[in-house]
Amino acid sequence: MIKNLTDVRGIKCWGAHIGIKKAKRDLAIIFSEKQGDVAAVFTQNVFLSECIKITKKHVSDGKAQAFVINSGNANTCTGEQGRKGAEMMAKTLAQELNIKKEDVIVASTGVVGREFPTDIVVEGIKKNVPKLTKQKIGGSLAASAIMTTDTFVKEGYVTFEINGKKINMAGIAKGSGMIHPNMATMLAFICCDISIEQPLLQKTLKEAVDKSFNMISVDGDTSTNDMVVILCNGMAENERIKTENDKGYKIFKDKLEKLCMHLAKLIVSDGEGATKLIEYQVVDAPDDESARKIARTISNSLLVKTAIYGRDPNWGRIIVAAGNAGIDFDPENIDLFIGTKKMVQMLNKSKPVNENLPKLRKMMRAGEIKVLLNLNCGNGKAVAWSCDITEEYVRFNAAYTT
Amino acid sequence: MIKNLTDVRGIKCWGAHIGIKKAKRDLAIIFSEKQGDVAAVFTQNVFLSECIKITKKHVSDGKAQAFVINSGNANTCTGEQGRKGAEMMAKTLAQELNIKKEDVIVASTGVVGREFPTDIVVEGIKKNVPKLTKQKIGGSLAASAIMTTDTFVKEGYVTFEINGKKINMAGIAKGSGMIHPNMATMLAFICCDISIEQPLLQKTLKEAVDKSFNMISVDGDTSTNDMVVILCNGMAENERIKTENDKGYKIFKDKLEKLCMHLAKLIVSDGEGATKLIEYQVVDAPDDESARKIARTISNSLLVKTAIYGRDPNWGRIIVAAGNAGIDFDPENIDLFIGTKKMVQMLNKSKPVNENLPKLRKMMRAGEIKVLLNLNCGNGKAVAWSCDITEEYVRFNAAYTT
Repeated sequence: MIKNLTDVRGIKCWGAHIGIKKAKRDLAIIFSEKQGDVAAVFTQNVFLSECIKITKKHVSDGKAQAFVINSGNANTCTGEQGRKGAEMMAKTLAQELNIKKEDVIVASTGVVGREFPTDIVVEGIKKNVPKLTKQKIGGSLAASAIMTTDTFVKEGYVTFEINGKKINMAGIAKGSGMIHPNMATMLAFICCDISIEQPLLQKTLKEAVDKSFNMISVDGDTSTNDMVVILCNGMAENERIKTENDKGYKIFKDKLEKLCMHLAKLIVSDGEGATKLIEYQVVDAPDDESARKIARTISNSLLVKTAIYGRDPNWGRIIVAAGNAGIDFDPENIDLFIGTKKMVQMLNKSKPVNENLPKLRKMMRAGEIKVLLNLNCGNGKAVAWSCDITEEYVRFNAAYTT
Repeated sequence: MIKNLTDVRGIKCWGAHIGIKKAKRDLAIIFSEKQGDVAAVFTQNVFLSECIKITKKHVSDGKAQAFVINSGNANTCTGEQGRKGAEMMAKTLAQELNIKKEDVIVASTGVVGREFPTDIVVEGIKKNVPKLTKQKIGGSLAASAIMTTDTFVKEGYVTFEINGKKINMAGIAKGSGMIHPNMATMLAFICCDISIEQPLLQKTLKEAVDKSFNMISVDGDTSTNDMVVILCNGMAENERIKTENDKGYKIFKDKLEKLCMHLAKLIVSDGEGATKLIEYQVVDAPDDESARKIARTISNSLLVKTAIYGRDPNWGRIIVAAGNAGIDFDPENIDLFIGTKKMVQMLNKSKPVNENLPKLRKMMRAGEIKVLLNLNCGNGKAVAWSCDITEEYVRFNAAYTT
């Protein structure tokens, strides 16, 4: 069986239906037996959910011990009532677990601007804390309780060794409708039993998020509730990592990146109504940041997404999107490849290779499509991911609250 | 009958099917009996259609006398072959009309990266120049020949007087699929019989485009083929306008803005599969540029568009989009109104007015929806427009070239 959060030393989880939503699970709790170091990355939206405001305060000392997450209500644009609700979430969980309320991470996801159901949440926390468990089912229930429009649970687990000590790292995530990433709430909660200093943990998380979640969810273009949080409780008892040169740091950084990319790709694969996963590689760009901007602009293009859904070998839409990224490059010197594991060249130094159209047309039937754009003007590179967009996506989002 | 291009003194038009497309009209010609002053605004995309490259050269002397426009092939990513094709378009029309080839404006719209059908276009120009007419039908045929996925012809006409001289101004436009405006090719061609100096004409056109076409099609985020061109042939024989203080300038500027807004709204109304026209007003923003950015970010939001299509009073999506515009404002002091001609308040100093939800729900059935966002922090204001997005849009764009 695939390992999950509960395979990290000291981590207990639970997820339950408490009545915010009609029938589906809507409350998740994650608890670490030991207080740990915490790092977090938050949304850049001007409007902030009350859960973001309180969690920013609670992580400011670099320590945390538990997570409480509700789905079904975003606690955004809820004013004083919502602020008190978020505080009650933290306070109630802290009381029930006998920990400091400043060690509680609070997260919410759901509809914006509806009164926060504080009483239901408080009651739900009290009822479900006793159910926290190290059984695998606890991690999976937690993962399912943070879902909104997600159609499947998103979990990941990686392991590695430092000086013979086994380190476990696992995470859960939610997010779908990444088709226009600036809206869909994206949450990820990662626990690890490594011992690492907080400032280094924060730097490492930020870098991993930039290569993973931020390549499906554009920087500064996020929902009011997005957060990625990692809690490291040190229970693996490795020699504490303090600098990038310390033993074990490189493998930790590498594994954290892999876990984040895994979760990010699960989110994209679950785009509302999506039928395909698309990977966009941009290489030989002026620099990495230019490559990132171009990769993200293509991956955000509605016309590219609909073409790929329709198995339409209309590669011109990819080129047009690349030219819209606001990056200066030589439009006369572009190579473009599209396909699956094997790709065919569609542009050679900006000249169409239209004899490859029949081959491309066949490849477009695949469930995973790869796009490789070579700008031939530098060493910058980046990868982004998206799903396709379908009629089902529109139907779904036309009826989300009603 | 509504007046059109042919009601401008000296302007003759024609539109025909020459065989680039299977059955629909695909060539438009507009001719001014007198050479005139010309001003133009072009796409900011890095990739440029061959038609943009040649037209930029031809307008550089500020003079022009004719337009030739084909639909069905964008002449983009077509290399040397396409460059020669665009040149042949200008050369052929110039020969047939006995004018300078540098006085010909060339435009193309259609699929990117397919060989340009030069022979068909050259033959088509020769065959259709003799049909140029001052009859109204000529203007309407030209307007229909520049359409791609458009479902209706887009024409506009305004008139005004300067010192007793009647001035006629008319235009045609094409564009649809403005749902993600950075892709859909947007073309507009305007003719006027006013006499005005070119530098002032260029400034006036740019300002009008910024308030109209650029509020449906984001600056720097345009297709490879976009252009708006105005030709003023002076045949009204008004005293030539040389400065902003000259008699008649203000009314010309005002009427040009109105004509551009009219054409821009027609484009939005014809969004592929669209069922609603939505107007987004942002007021009391830090400054006009901030207001523009916020209005455009909301109008680009896929989640807002799908909510409005679904008649879903999920106003939170509007707020979330506003917060994503990259503009700093106080999120605790926002007023939001939504409705039709009459609007209801949904946020009062950032507090939800959820008792208005039933009223809003009823209003959402209308074909024209208005959104008014008051940031209460300055004097900046802007208006943007979009359509909704429907399953039909996805079906359409999944099958555009295949």
